[in-house]
Amino acid sequence: MTIAVLNAFTRRFVEGRLPAGIEPYYFANGDELRALVPKAEIGWFDSFDGTPVREILELAENLKWLNTLAAGVDFFPLDLLGERNVTLTNSAGLNSITIAEYAVMGMLVIAKGYREVVRSQERREWLADAPGKLELFGSKALIIGAGGIGGRTAELLKTWDVDVTMVRRNPAPGVLTADQWRARLGEFDWVVIAVPSTADTDKMMSQAEFAAMKPGAAVLNFSRGPVIDQDALMAAVTSGQVGGAFLDVTDPEPLPSDHPLWGFDNVHITSHLSGRSQTRLIERSAERFIENVTCWERGELLAGVVDLSLGY
Amino acid sequence: MTIAVLNAFTRRFVEGRLPAGIEPYYFANGDELRALVPKAEIGWFDSFDGTPVREILELAENLKWLNTLAAGVDFFPLDLLGERNVTLTNSAGLNSITIAEYAVMGMLVIAKGYREVVRSQERREWLADAPGKLELFGSKALIIGAGGIGGRTAELLKTWDVDVTMVRRNPAPGVLTADQWRARLGEFDWVVIAVPSTADTDKMMSQAEFAAMKPGAAVLNFSRGPVIDQDALMAAVTSGQVGGAFLDVTDPEPLPSDHPLWGFDNVHITSHLSGRSQTRLIERSAERFIENVTCWERGELLAGVVDLSLGY
Repeated sequence: MTIAVLNAFTRRFVEGRLPAGIEPYYFANGDELRALVPKAEIGWFDSFDGTPVREILELAENLKWLNTLAAGVDFFPLDLLGERNVTLTNSAGLNSITIAEYAVMGMLVIAKGYREVVRSQERREWLADAPGKLELFGSKALIIGAGGIGGRTAELLKTWDVDVTMVRRNPAPGVLTADQWRARLGEFDWVVIAVPSTADTDKMMSQAEFAAMKPGAAVLNFSRGPVIDQDALMAAVTSGQVGGAFLDVTDPEPLPSDHPLWGFDNVHITSHLSGRSQTRLIERSAERFIENVTCWERGELLAGVVDLSLGY
Repeated sequence: MTIAVLNAFTRRFVEGRLPAGIEPYYFANGDELRALVPKAEIGWFDSFDGTPVREILELAENLKWLNTLAAGVDFFPLDLLGERNVTLTNSAGLNSITIAEYAVMGMLVIAKGYREVVRSQERREWLADAPGKLELFGSKALIIGAGGIGGRTAELLKTWDVDVTMVRRNPAPGVLTADQWRARLGEFDWVVIAVPSTADTDKMMSQAEFAAMKPGAAVLNFSRGPVIDQDALMAAVTSGQVGGAFLDVTDPEPLPSDHPLWGFDNVHITSHLSGRSQTRLIERSAERFIENVTCWERGELLAGVVDLSLGY
């Protein structure tokens, strides 16, 4: 029997659906997890209760495959998993639908000045004119990162008459590569960031990139905070060179209440909620996990395997 | 020569582009309009400075064709225009792109609880969980009114995996007619209203309709305020039967600051800005007007003619 140690939140989706060769154990808290983890060959932990991930994984001496609800895996000890030859599967693609909806919402609320509309209602004031007069129609968007989120965002905009250009690692017709997009930044009204957070993408948007953007254009970040140089961003929104920023992610998280980024009128901070504004992530992730368990038993390739050296 | 009396805001789009047989006069204010209007055969007034429309039109004894930036023409004296055999052309369809973008934004901000996110930023508070967890993906929308706004909204949602059903006057496959949609109301997560405001649509959404909606579903209104019975709506949002309302239009407008509608946490009021959140309406309307002038001279059919008896 292969022993699988699973978070209790997976139980209602997983129970009774695993192959006969898998023996599942469910944990409800960090103590139960610590007790079970040494015998786990398959693990789906995601305890999210403050237990350090590295500490748990150091105890996981028999672990061969770790699954996670997360899409970005920058907080996992990838070195340790690599040394132990653990296969890591994430939920890349499974929260793309939700995050892409959030991304288009971000573009719309900037375009229409919707935050001012919210404030006018709090003042019970009928606005005489629109605080934002942009249309997505006819605008140009650069989507950096052609994974699930970037791809789905482009899909959502397909019938909006937005001219979408994608940036991806591997060259393809009509797509920009990592060494091509900077020279084209001045063409776009929207720069949507949906890359994995790795050493390569650290401070990818910094002073030079903001200066190269079309004046007044907006940047939206659904990747990780460190992908943007926040000091450079604050300077660029202060000068007006960058017209708006919609930041689902910041550095650090949570953003401390005294951080200056909160106070900018053209910076929108959304507390890393974009992927969590849904109710189906566990269900979707469990569906993929069950399919993957069958593949695992047969020695077939799993869906959503993270390249531990690339970090995504 | 045919005399055309045109608002000065049209000048930069129209000047030098009219056929030789048209003699344009531009007015910059209500007094100039009053002086010019008696000789106008073609008119594009839209003074929007508080001059009563009926008063101006009573002076327009030679008027044969009136053009307007407005889409809804409920504030025009249609009876007077009818008696005088004046052709009325509106901008129906020309602000559809903008309003449809606003409509999808309305669905998204309700789905994601975005107003709470705005408030959290004002408190400089990183939210621990998402205030809204709906996805448009997999939801069902009823769009009442298959004109430009309704049609474009459906177009925008085409790749969103939203199951869209349209309501229109004339039967067509897969479309509900005015006497069919009420029986189906319980199926939809979103009810988007984009009908013309006429006697037929007055209080179209009232107590019975709200009661028939799927519990917790949202209603969005981009038509005119009187299409919704606001007292019935306030009762329905208080009970939770209606989960959210996104009202671009209200009754009356402007909504007085002491009106209770402002204070509901699940009612979003957007000050009739949806069609004005753009910069291109005059340009788009002028393009149509210039094409129409040529048609007019040739005795051909104009685009955007209002049926004065139907009121749209």
